[in-house]
Amino acid sequence: MKLPENVRAMIDAGAGAHLTTLNADGSPQVTVIWVALDGDEIIAGHFNDWQKLKNVRRDPRVALSFITPELSEIGMQEYVVLYGEGRVEEGGAPELLNRLAELYLIPDSGFPPPDMPPGYILRIDVNRITGVGGWKDSD
Amino acid sequence: MKLPENVRAMIDAGAGAHLTTLNADGSPQVTVIWVALDGDEIIAGHFNDWQKLKNVRRDPRVALSFITPELSEIGMQEYVVLYGEGRVEEGGAPELLNRLAELYLIPDSGFPPPDMPPGYILRIDVNRITGVGGWKDSD
Repeated sequence: MKLPENVRAMIDAGAGAHLTTLNADGSPQVTVIWVALDGDEIIAGHFNDWQKLKNVRRDPRVALSFITPELSEIGMQEYVVLYGEGRVEEGGAPELLNRLAELYLIPDSGFPPPDMPPGYILRIDVNRITGVGGWKDSD
Repeated sequence: MKLPENVRAMIDAGAGAHLTTLNADGSPQVTVIWVALDGDEIIAGHFNDWQKLKNVRRDPRVALSFITPELSEIGMQEYVVLYGEGRVEEGGAPELLNRLAELYLIPDSGFPPPDMPPGYILRIDVNRITGVGGWKDSD
């Protein structure tokens, strides 16, 4: 689906995304990942074939949740949850993680180190958005 | 399980918890909730019989994930994920949410309003902890 502008802006600002995937026994698996936009898809880079990537290959259903900087008038923390389907592509991790390290880490962090393997890109096609705050009904 | 002291301190400080439950079709459902400690269990209060509570009654497997205030030396955001089993008890929501509103909201927020229904308490017994930072191996 087309992502709302406020979701796009949040991702461009470098929000940490809680990624939920499903283990083989159906239980949830959660990690916090760096994400970026690629058109209307959300992408993440991984040097290793982590459990979350194996999970997505078996069952593509994922959730990405973010606590946003916004507070309601009474101080209620707003958040957004993106539901979608993931797929895993080979290669591309160093380029993406080099770019995202500038956003998520201190300057000249030294991460990622040179000569890392091509790794994997996780691509997520969002099909439903929920949350608390101005997310649900945004265009 | 017995919760590590650093996890207990984080929860006492009022960290927003991303709660993942499992829908009837096995897909993940995520909301951000307020949590508190009750001994070694984690509790949350709900005025309504939300989908997440229905989910827990059907399948108790849940995950709670938190981004913590800590950053690594290079600025990597630390996080912790608690896996466990949930169960839903009737009543007790107003007392718990009154207490947590002082932690999570501005002073005199007016939330929760008086005369709310007894609602539900979600209790989570943690059986596994993962994350990035000083969480995994803490005592």
